[in-house]
Amino acid sequence: MTVPFDAVTFQDWMRGIQAGMEADMSAFLPAATVVPAKLHEAMRYALLGGGKRVRPLLVHAAGALTGADAQALSRAAAAVEMIHAYSLVHDDMPCMDDDDLRRGKPTVHVAYDEATALLVGDALQSQAFTVLAGAEGIPPARLLAMVRLLADAAGSGGMCGGQAIDLDSVGLALTLEQLERMHQLKTGALLRASVVLGALAGKDLSASELEALHAYSRAIGLAFQVVDDVLDATADSATLGKTAGKDAADNKPTYVSILGLDESVALAEQLRRDAHAALGAFGDGALRLRELADLIVQRKA
Amino acid sequence: MTVPFDAVTFQDWMRGIQAGMEADMSAFLPAATVVPAKLHEAMRYALLGGGKRVRPLLVHAAGALTGADAQALSRAAAAVEMIHAYSLVHDDMPCMDDDDLRRGKPTVHVAYDEATALLVGDALQSQAFTVLAGAEGIPPARLLAMVRLLADAAGSGGMCGGQAIDLDSVGLALTLEQLERMHQLKTGALLRASVVLGALAGKDLSASELEALHAYSRAIGLAFQVVDDVLDATADSATLGKTAGKDAADNKPTYVSILGLDESVALAEQLRRDAHAALGAFGDGALRLRELADLIVQRKA
Repeated sequence: MTVPFDAVTFQDWMRGIQAGMEADMSAFLPAATVVPAKLHEAMRYALLGGGKRVRPLLVHAAGALTGADAQALSRAAAAVEMIHAYSLVHDDMPCMDDDDLRRGKPTVHVAYDEATALLVGDALQSQAFTVLAGAEGIPPARLLAMVRLLADAAGSGGMCGGQAIDLDSVGLALTLEQLERMHQLKTGALLRASVVLGALAGKDLSASELEALHAYSRAIGLAFQVVDDVLDATADSATLGKTAGKDAADNKPTYVSILGLDESVALAEQLRRDAHAALGAFGDGALRLRELADLIVQRKA
Repeated sequence: MTVPFDAVTFQDWMRGIQAGMEADMSAFLPAATVVPAKLHEAMRYALLGGGKRVRPLLVHAAGALTGADAQALSRAAAAVEMIHAYSLVHDDMPCMDDDDLRRGKPTVHVAYDEATALLVGDALQSQAFTVLAGAEGIPPARLLAMVRLLADAAGSGGMCGGQAIDLDSVGLALTLEQLERMHQLKTGALLRASVVLGALAGKDLSASELEALHAYSRAIGLAFQVVDDVLDATADSATLGKTAGKDAADNKPTYVSILGLDESVALAEQLRRDAHAALGAFGDGALRLRELADLIVQRKA
């Protein structure tokens, strides 16, 4: 699906991407009637019907910079979102964060059972690579680089590694630097990968342009987590669609616990400005990326 | 690593592959000192130091048929074994089979903890795609097809799907046909993928040759499970390196519970002959594949 880039407001563009992603991701999953039906139904429950789709929005916004094919972007975006969705399903399980509520609905292990939740996450990760490796309109060598990028961002040097550090940090007094390193893996790796995957799906960027995108994605990756911590401390569960105040209750180190609330809000704003500054050389082509930096910092849930 | 194909006995060839795989897989994982160290140590614990390496042996044996590059085969073999190892880690967890013993050692969630076991499995799956997509000496479009093949074999239409059907079958009286369908997904999909991945890593096969390989891999995939059921009913835990008699205790349908012991043994032998027959057109090039069919059926653990 594609939405003309310059003809619509950010809100319309975002809603267009979100609706298109919902349809695309539904098509990229087996129907709920395909055997094993319960597993497929639960995979659809975990992936579809909600979520801000920040990562797909980043993929599409970065792809707009490089003139990427809309169908290829849709597969890259769905693959990233499947990795993200699987990580939420596993993180919510009793042996991890033990959370009952996600996007305003019972978590997968509550709605189904733990064994199903485990398999849903496992199968969504596999499906991400099925979907990405099946993209057309991207030269095969480039697409292989994208597969490696997604796998690296998901694995022990990325998202899973950050989650492991997070688990080991409960009850510890992390420094700001340690907290940042953890989040640059736990949530940052996949957010950065979203931007780079979107860009790679189109025409080549120069080394300095790629570095600018990396700087942008590091800033918004960190900003995303700072704002998450601020919202966890200030919003209610109904607004968040997940259990609020959980980090403090779990004795987890957060930006708010280390910096305090006001400084955390100021840091997020600084990172938003850093993200804008990084995009300076791109001009109008980076409009949606700038607007996404604003969204990430100014969101209320 | 490579072992001359026709100069050594099967035992020496097998031990050469096993030793080479151990070294290669160690190199394909981050060192146990790399942060997060506990996760990397646990990933190495799950993957290294044992196992029959049936899937890597199949990859190498099939690659010998098509003259595949040894380094490319090593990556394909390691990727398949990482998927297999992750599935064992997750299957052993309390919410699935709840098993304490694997390859004669405490399972990962016992040796570490449940959260680590969950992440070990997740990160091993990612690492499999990192390793496979990084193979050299294979044309990119072919390598992408191999990535899709592995992802499909691992996902809800393959291994995870079979596991889901298995979970839903506890206490049910399956027909032989239903049992076969479950196992063709649960263990068969990855065994079949091993054979096809190895073959795809080399020169093109004709359609009839590919069909012969599919017939071979269907036969050995099923034989593997029939023999597993026979061993579960007849061998002791020390020999198996895992808890014996578990299927009966868990009230799971097995070939032995449906066919009886003698008929199960006869079925395995028939499947061994089917596997040999499927390879007829290949001549000497399929020597190791024939020997692996024998190994799968005649193993004692």
